[in-house]
Amino acid sequence: MTHIDDIYRSIAHADRPEVFIHLRPQDDVAQDYAASMSAGGELAGVVLAVKDNVDVAGLPTTAACPSYAYTPTDDAPAVAALKSAGAVVIGKTNLDQFATGLVGTRSPYGAVRDATRPDHISGGSSSGSSVAVALGFADIAIGTDTAGSGRVPAGLQGLVGVKPSVGAISTIGVVPACASYDCVTIFARDLDTADAAMAVMARARGSAPFPADTALAAPPAPVIAVPAELPELSESWRAAFAEAITQAEAAGMTVKPIDLTDFLAAAALLYNGALVAERYDAVGDVIAAGPDGLDPTVTTIIGAADRFSATELLADRRRVEQLRTAALAELGDADALMVPTAPAHPTLAEVAADPVGVNSRMGTYTNFCNLFGMCALAVPAGTVDEGAAGTANFGVTLLSTAHRDAVLMDLARRLAGDPAARASWPESVSDTSDLAVFGAHLRGQPLDWQLTTPGARWAGEVTTSVGYRLVELDTVPPKPGLIHDPASGRRIRGERWVVPTAALGTFLAQLPAPMMLGRITLDGGEEIVGFGCDAAAAQAGRPMDADHWLAQR
Amino acid sequence: MTHIDDIYRSIAHADRPEVFIHLRPQDDVAQDYAASMSAGGELAGVVLAVKDNVDVAGLPTTAACPSYAYTPTDDAPAVAALKSAGAVVIGKTNLDQFATGLVGTRSPYGAVRDATRPDHISGGSSSGSSVAVALGFADIAIGTDTAGSGRVPAGLQGLVGVKPSVGAISTIGVVPACASYDCVTIFARDLDTADAAMAVMARARGSAPFPADTALAAPPAPVIAVPAELPELSESWRAAFAEAITQAEAAGMTVKPIDLTDFLAAAALLYNGALVAERYDAVGDVIAAGPDGLDPTVTTIIGAADRFSATELLADRRRVEQLRTAALAELGDADALMVPTAPAHPTLAEVAADPVGVNSRMGTYTNFCNLFGMCALAVPAGTVDEGAAGTANFGVTLLSTAHRDAVLMDLARRLAGDPAARASWPESVSDTSDLAVFGAHLRGQPLDWQLTTPGARWAGEVTTSVGYRLVELDTVPPKPGLIHDPASGRRIRGERWVVPTAALGTFLAQLPAPMMLGRITLDGGEEIVGFGCDAAAAQAGRPMDADHWLAQR
Repeated sequence: MTHIDDIYRSIAHADRPEVFIHLRPQDDVAQDYAASMSAGGELAGVVLAVKDNVDVAGLPTTAACPSYAYTPTDDAPAVAALKSAGAVVIGKTNLDQFATGLVGTRSPYGAVRDATRPDHISGGSSSGSSVAVALGFADIAIGTDTAGSGRVPAGLQGLVGVKPSVGAISTIGVVPACASYDCVTIFARDLDTADAAMAVMARARGSAPFPADTALAAPPAPVIAVPAELPELSESWRAAFAEAITQAEAAGMTVKPIDLTDFLAAAALLYNGALVAERYDAVGDVIAAGPDGLDPTVTTIIGAADRFSATELLADRRRVEQLRTAALAELGDADALMVPTAPAHPTLAEVAADPVGVNSRMGTYTNFCNLFGMCALAVPAGTVDEGAAGTANFGVTLLSTAHRDAVLMDLARRLAGDPAARASWPESVSDTSDLAVFGAHLRGQPLDWQLTTPGARWAGEVTTSVGYRLVELDTVPPKPGLIHDPASGRRIRGERWVVPTAALGTFLAQLPAPMMLGRITLDGGEEIVGFGCDAAAAQAGRPMDADHWLAQR
Repeated sequence: MTHIDDIYRSIAHADRPEVFIHLRPQDDVAQDYAASMSAGGELAGVVLAVKDNVDVAGLPTTAACPSYAYTPTDDAPAVAALKSAGAVVIGKTNLDQFATGLVGTRSPYGAVRDATRPDHISGGSSSGSSVAVALGFADIAIGTDTAGSGRVPAGLQGLVGVKPSVGAISTIGVVPACASYDCVTIFARDLDTADAAMAVMARARGSAPFPADTALAAPPAPVIAVPAELPELSESWRAAFAEAITQAEAAGMTVKPIDLTDFLAAAALLYNGALVAERYDAVGDVIAAGPDGLDPTVTTIIGAADRFSATELLADRRRVEQLRTAALAELGDADALMVPTAPAHPTLAEVAADPVGVNSRMGTYTNFCNLFGMCALAVPAGTVDEGAAGTANFGVTLLSTAHRDAVLMDLARRLAGDPAARASWPESVSDTSDLAVFGAHLRGQPLDWQLTTPGARWAGEVTTSVGYRLVELDTVPPKPGLIHDPASGRRIRGERWVVPTAALGTFLAQLPAPMMLGRITLDGGEEIVGFGCDAAAAQAGRPMDADHWLAQR
């Protein structure tokens, strides 16, 4: 029994025909799976579902509008990257038509139901992708996110949902929703898998490089902003968020309540203003032609979006910029903002009764994000007992300013109690360098802030090759200096840090004499940048014992 | 006789009432000048004219539309920064109304005439600013530039015109023309003065920081793209451009003809498409109210700009992005593009006969720049003999992609035969570090490319303090290594380079053993980052003579 057999058996038993718009034949997938397992790769054997507004060569792209369908000859670069790393596409998933919605009910292919409570919504617009991962029909799934479509369903389905910085993942081959703000996202059941998939997609053609000084980790004592008020949350959902705050504090984070007014005001602009013109620009001609299979709510929203003038659009964008400036000032120097991912988990009936109103409330804590160019990471955070209605998944989303994706991943690992776990993204696509440190820069020692402040990441312990020794330098206080001395029979223990290469420059520029930096050799032969000291200091230094020095501190 | 006396005498004798919309009383300016000279500062005693769409506290801002006028209580941050550094505002200068034009004739305050040929145009829209500097009514002037307004008049008036990367200089307190693309510029009679003024303005509130890896210089052997075709240029103007190419080659640049089609296509979008909606967004309500003093051409252009839909604007912006991608691919890895600043120097009569057509042709080589987010530097490049019409100034503009402003300044200095001149901008506002090099990284030595490739700038020779010596390292080929040895009675000669701090990190990450970097002490006591080597190599190295090593190479 292979992984693929398991998956197709699950699909057959689940009675969830609405999840996939196009499910590939089991034999084809099994063949690809075998090939992937034999070829290997970072994602060998990982089964991938793809939201049906993202191109997979040879499978129709419908965007949940049958009359819009076309069959691309090329994979979207994000898909191609995942396939190259070994991921096996199982099929294309249902969505709110044209990715317009946060509920998962706006599709002629059927409303996508919650994985465990079928009278409740899945959340959208990446509805099929989220439920496919939640029910084990896939290991990971590609979603998209303009207003929260990669986060709301992650929250409701108890998944990790990664919404990268705008531009960080190529959107070539994606049906635009609101092109200035669209992002490709990943759903996964755990952080490591999501992290690995993001790292792979970040290398896709058209993905924008991260800046030279991209932070790779949060500082040792992070500050997390949280909303002072929690609109749209019931008492039990507020209690779940209070518990998430308690866990953040337990993980060493300082929690700072802030006023979310300017964040929430931007949400209103996303649909109730001229910004929706971009949705008309993308697919308005399809809507205007009025083919079969249009969702009535989506038709109403996009169909009306051609009525705006260019000056109205400009005014609304200016308003977004004003709100962004004010909101980020309120965020201040907090390392991230933590919010409930969704404020509630509605039933299908509640959405049917008020399709626009419920949808709008679902985006309370997501809509502003892409307008402000922020990155976000939705993670599970317990459950809410809803009595006779069952148990709802509760999730929180960590948000930060553009390109701080790794900070969010680091914070999420700490919330999950796994701070030392490996990092892949964006570290693997950023310009980083390894740095070996000894003495005062070791974790917890007086100078570690020189590494943590620019966002360097601790990456374990190292030992030099034989042929190094430490001397006590003539500094105040006395510091150990590493000396390359082939006559020494000793190895010296230290730590490896991963540093943004730009920050390595800053570090060097601020390094006082007699400390120097250059290549040292580790046990095993690897050469990385590490500490040393100048020849005069090496000569004058008194022999010392590193363990003794650390014990004295 | 003070500088101020000189200036006011020039103004009185020149019969150019159209240059200033508001000229401050001589006594007030003289008082400010005296205060500036006594206080000192980078721009002490520098007389500044300000285009009348930029706020100066207490003077009316008209944008050349009397009914629009308001009197700001605050200086625009760019003005405030120049004043803080010592610049003395003399007055507010005439412009094409609402900065809409490249001719300088579209103003109820009168057409601004060329500095030396009064039947010819000044160029615009920063018409008064350019003529004020050309005629010595000011030492520098602030202009603005959306479609070429800081470059065309610089070219026609024989001045330096600096058009920074979009966002690099604060546009707070500037009447918007087309807000997404507006830039504050500087006119000056020489590069050093322009450079110093830009450096000061870049520190203004609201000026965006340069990226960590901002290049500070062009490489030693730059590649300059030039248009393969020169539309709109007469034979004599083509000859002047050919001469500029010859000078570039003489300055060590490789000239590469490219196809300018995609650049020129963007020009058409700036006025003949929905992008003009941004001009209506800025001042359309003033135009619509139809007050006295509206320029008829400007009224026609802006007044019609409310007819565009949001989707038309989005489509045109998408088209700009497509053209930008194609154009920058054509530019390839050229260090800059060199174009004629203006294609001709029309008379007032020619503009009157065809106000839109002539204006449009004036922007042939400037319109695309800000749409593509590029930076530009207009410099004088000789003259053109126009027979009975007199002599025209000829100018070229160097352009590059965003944030490569220092590369352009460096190239312009080389064109002017002054490659070693001081750099201020953006070096003084970028994150840079000094690096002392010896041996193989000296200019012209085998490894200098490790410094020039990331845009480091040679900054002269240095000598260490007493207490250093060189050893011949056991490398292939043998390289000199600098050793700190207090017992040595010698100083060692080397060079100072200014390096983007991010590039210093890259440099360190790539540095092979046994070389190391750390702080060394220069003659005079200054400490900067410099080369050394590890203790084992220092011990093993053979004494060597640096001059001998260099002579051998």
